[in-house]
Amino acid sequence: MDTVWLDEERNMLMYIDQTKLPNSVEVRECCDIFKLVDIIQRLAIRGAPAIGVGAAIGLYAAACRFEDETPEAFYYTLRKCERLLKDSRPTAVNLAVAVDRMMNAAKRAKRYGINTMIAGMRREARNIYNEDIATCKRIGEHGATLLRDGMSVLTHCNAGRLAAVRYGTALAPIYVATEQGKLIHVFVDETRPLLQGARLTAFELHDSNIPVTLQCDNMAASIMKTGRVGMIFVGADRVAANGDTANKIGTSGLAIIAKHYGVPFYVCAPFTTIDFNCATGDDIVIEQRDEYEVTDLHYEKRMAPPGIGVYNPAFDVTPHELITGIITERGIFSVEQLIEQK
Amino acid sequence: MDTVWLDEERNMLMYIDQTKLPNSVEVRECCDIFKLVDIIQRLAIRGAPAIGVGAAIGLYAAACRFEDETPEAFYYTLRKCERLLKDSRPTAVNLAVAVDRMMNAAKRAKRYGINTMIAGMRREARNIYNEDIATCKRIGEHGATLLRDGMSVLTHCNAGRLAAVRYGTALAPIYVATEQGKLIHVFVDETRPLLQGARLTAFELHDSNIPVTLQCDNMAASIMKTGRVGMIFVGADRVAANGDTANKIGTSGLAIIAKHYGVPFYVCAPFTTIDFNCATGDDIVIEQRDEYEVTDLHYEKRMAPPGIGVYNPAFDVTPHELITGIITERGIFSVEQLIEQK
Repeated sequence: MDTVWLDEERNMLMYIDQTKLPNSVEVRECCDIFKLVDIIQRLAIRGAPAIGVGAAIGLYAAACRFEDETPEAFYYTLRKCERLLKDSRPTAVNLAVAVDRMMNAAKRAKRYGINTMIAGMRREARNIYNEDIATCKRIGEHGATLLRDGMSVLTHCNAGRLAAVRYGTALAPIYVATEQGKLIHVFVDETRPLLQGARLTAFELHDSNIPVTLQCDNMAASIMKTGRVGMIFVGADRVAANGDTANKIGTSGLAIIAKHYGVPFYVCAPFTTIDFNCATGDDIVIEQRDEYEVTDLHYEKRMAPPGIGVYNPAFDVTPHELITGIITERGIFSVEQLIEQK
Repeated sequence: MDTVWLDEERNMLMYIDQTKLPNSVEVRECCDIFKLVDIIQRLAIRGAPAIGVGAAIGLYAAACRFEDETPEAFYYTLRKCERLLKDSRPTAVNLAVAVDRMMNAAKRAKRYGINTMIAGMRREARNIYNEDIATCKRIGEHGATLLRDGMSVLTHCNAGRLAAVRYGTALAPIYVATEQGKLIHVFVDETRPLLQGARLTAFELHDSNIPVTLQCDNMAASIMKTGRVGMIFVGADRVAANGDTANKIGTSGLAIIAKHYGVPFYVCAPFTTIDFNCATGDDIVIEQRDEYEVTDLHYEKRMAPPGIGVYNPAFDVTPHELITGIITERGIFSVEQLIEQK
C-alpha cells in the first residue's frame, strides 16, 4: 500500500492517517480543500514528498468538485486553494513546487475549457505521483552504494515510505541495500515531540523485517561514541542554494555530534528539494508549532506545569559544513558539487 | 517542604513521590528496605543527592525496626540492606557514599550495643541531610557569581531542589542569583524518556516564579544557535578523577553542541561526587533501564511497534575536555584544578 494515492474512479485522494500509526493502519479519503489543509496541518499526511504528492492529488480531487461555470471562475477558485495549501506548512519546498505544477497545468489548459483544465490537472497529479516513486527509488540506488553488509545506520524522524509515496528518501538506500541482500540495522531517533521515529520509522522498517533499535533523541551521542553507527541518513524539507538544510528539529544537533565523532552525515532528498531561490538557511522560514505538542503526551496527559513558556520549532537548519553529502536521484553530491549543479 | 526528610518522632523516611509531579504533590513515608529499593528504582526518589540522603534516612528508619537481639546480628542485617541499596542504582556515587557513612556509624558503635548503633545512625543520617542543604547552598553561592542579570541558562534533567533536599545543584546558582535580585530565565530540556525536565525542573522553577521555557531535548542546538543561551548548568551522578562526568543521558550530546556554539558548560555537584577511585569515565557503570520507558508514554500508551530493539541507557559520560568548569561547595574548578585537589 502506498502512503497517498488517487482513487481513479472516484477522483478521490486516498491516504493512510499517520496520526493513528503504529497502533492502527487506517485509510481515509479527502476531496475538500479545507479538510486537506487540516490533514496536512495535523500531520495525518506528513513528510515533505508525501505532502507534495498529497496536495497535488487533493487539489485535483477538490477541483473535480468545483461548481464554477467558466474557466476564469474555476481558475480563481483554484487560486484561493493554492494560497490555503501553500500557507498550511511553510518550511518544505515540495508542497509549493507541487502546487505550482498543478496551477500551471490548469493555466495552460484554460482556453480549452474547464474539462480540459481538469484533465490537465489529473495528468500532472499522476506525473507528480509517478515521479516521486521513481525519484525515491533512484535515491535509494545511489545511497545503497555507500552501505556495506552488516552496517548500522542512524536516522532521525521519518523520511521513509510513509514520508513519500513508496520508497522514501533517507530510508530508500536501506530498502534498496536490503533488497540487494545486505543486512542493514537501523538506530531510530524517536523524534520528539510527535515521535515520528518511534511511530513511523520503527513501524515501517520493522514491517519490512529490517532490524531496528529505537532510542530517545538525546541518546544519539551515547551510541555514536561506541562506534556502532556507521553512517547517518536524514531527509530534508528544503535545501538552500549553499547546501544549508532545513529538516526536522534535532537534525542540526545530530550533525554537530556526528562531526564530533567522525560519523558521515548524508541528506537524502529529491533534487527539487534544493531551492536555488533561497541563498542560505537564514532565508528558510521555520514553522513554530503548538506548545501542547511538547507539554502534553500526545494531547492526552499534561506533563508540565501550566503557565510556562514553550519553544517548539518544527525544523532546524543544518549548516552545509556539517553535511558530508546530499544523495539525490541524480547522484551523490558534496555541497560544492551541488552548488555547481545550479 | 524538603524533598526527603526524617520524621523525628516516628523514625520514618518522608518523601515527595516524584512520579506524581507535576500534577499532584504527594507526601509518602517508608521504613522498609525492600520498599525503599523499589522507591529508588521507580524514581519516586531520584537525583543523586536526594537518593543519598533518602537512602541514609531510609536505612535508619528500617534499622529502627530490625528484630535482631545482638549487635552482630543487627549488623549482619544491616549488611544485607547495604548490598540491596547499593545495587539499586549503580551510577550515582552519592548513594554508595551515604550508605558507607551509615554503615561506619553503626560499626563504630557496635561494642556499645544496638541502641547506641541506632543512635549513631540517627546522628549520621541527620548529618548527611544537613550537609546536603549546606553544600548545595554553597554551590549556589559560587555558581551565582557567574550569572549576570537578564541571562538565560539552559539545563538538562532535574538537578534542582527535587534532586537534593532543598537547593539542588545545577539550579542552586539560579535560586541564589534570583534571591540576589538578578532576573534569570531558564531553558529546560524536557529530558526523555521520563521527562524530569518537564515534570520536575519546569515545576520547581515556575513554583519559585523563575521564568521557564520548556523545550524538547533535540531543540537545544536550535536555541543555542540563536545566541540566547548564556550558559549551561547540569548536575552529575559521578565525576571520575580525570573530570569525565556521568550525568543524565543526553548531557554529553549537549556538551558537544555547547562547544560547537561556544556556550560555557558547567557541572554543578557536591565535592563528594568526584570519585577519585575512578580513573576515567570508562570506569563508570552505566545503568540500562527498561525499554518500556522509551516505547510507551509513561507506561500508558504504546508509541512504537512491538518486537523492535530499544537502547535506553540512563546516563552518559561527558568527556572532561567539553567541561568549562565544575562548581562545588569548595569553589569553581577547571578540570585541571580539580585534579590537583585530590
